[in-house]
Amino acid sequence: MFPEPLQRLIRAFERFPGIGPRSAERMALHVLRMPREDVAEIALALRDARLNTRRCELCFNVAEESPCRICSDPQRDSSLVLVVEGPREVEKLESAGVHRGLYHVILEGFAPREGAEPDPRALAALRRRVQSGVVAEVVLATAPDREGEGAALLAREALAGLPVRITRLARGVPVGTRLEYLHGEILGEAFRGRRPWSADPGAAE
Amino acid sequence: MFPEPLQRLIRAFERFPGIGPRSAERMALHVLRMPREDVAEIALALRDARLNTRRCELCFNVAEESPCRICSDPQRDSSLVLVVEGPREVEKLESAGVHRGLYHVILEGFAPREGAEPDPRALAALRRRVQSGVVAEVVLATAPDREGEGAALLAREALAGLPVRITRLARGVPVGTRLEYLHGEILGEAFRGRRPWSADPGAAE
Repeated sequence: MFPEPLQRLIRAFERFPGIGPRSAERMALHVLRMPREDVAEIALALRDARLNTRRCELCFNVAEESPCRICSDPQRDSSLVLVVEGPREVEKLESAGVHRGLYHVILEGFAPREGAEPDPRALAALRRRVQSGVVAEVVLATAPDREGEGAALLAREALAGLPVRITRLARGVPVGTRLEYLHGEILGEAFRGRRPWSADPGAAE
Repeated sequence: MFPEPLQRLIRAFERFPGIGPRSAERMALHVLRMPREDVAEIALALRDARLNTRRCELCFNVAEESPCRICSDPQRDSSLVLVVEGPREVEKLESAGVHRGLYHVILEGFAPREGAEPDPRALAALRRRVQSGVVAEVVLATAPDREGEGAALLAREALAGLPVRITRLARGVPVGTRLEYLHGEILGEAFRGRRPWSADPGAAE
């Protein structure tokens, strides 16, 4: 039997998603050979992350203050709200620099792909945001898989009856891929969604 | 950009062996939705594991006190010392209940398979244990792979010239396996190490 303090740490690590008993053991044994200052630093980082972050009351993303920096940025287009599942998607879209509007995070607990469901409070808040009158378009940017589709449906339901344009991201062949490597379903959706082509890219719309 | 306290936690998790950026992110986001008490508990478990465990001064295994419970157990056979790489191997052997002697953990930092080398202090301590005169046999029970073989060689060198029996675990076909699934090298070693067989198992020795 490992010493009790070590066992306790192993059990603590095991509670994290994706961490099995072997990884937890390996992580815990790693702690034993870390400098004490580093261990204290991690302990502090844990508490700080939990105590000094919150969900933005407008977009439900994780943030240090509420409203978050994105929601309170006057430069951003508040008429365009992009609905995503979690904070990681916001990160991704922000670093791609493709969206100058605002976001709305709808998954409970920030955990897509781990059985997390859309948060009813986040959906109600989305409806209130649109009802407030500023939002002209809501882009449903959830993942094109079963969970993402389910989340998108719930978001659309939450907006039922409101005079707002609801769109979703274009689907099709990902830029930079060779067709031979793609799943048939992707090709099928790209074929069904085919669009007129013109030498002038702008005219394709 | 994630809020700074969250980024800091992600970086902290990334330092653990086997935890990549994606896992670290997932773990850190998980912390945000844990009850505060659970986060405080993990922080405490980290510090306790680091501060309330030590290496046993005799066998170098991780323990709460030194000498550890195994080394200070008068029921155990102190003439038989089994050399292993890390604390996990001690756990495994203890739960299998096959060894009633003592152990000696030789890998630095308890981390086999992560490039950890035998700890020179542990090797020197092994030599001193044998020199003290009680040990009659040292079983080199390191893993039958490159790192384990290297560790076993260093342990044997550390014992050079001392009047002690040095053995290693038997190698061959693992009990409970079908031959068809085994690597050729395992079969080769089992073939080279073949032993006379008799209807009386005891007579095979």
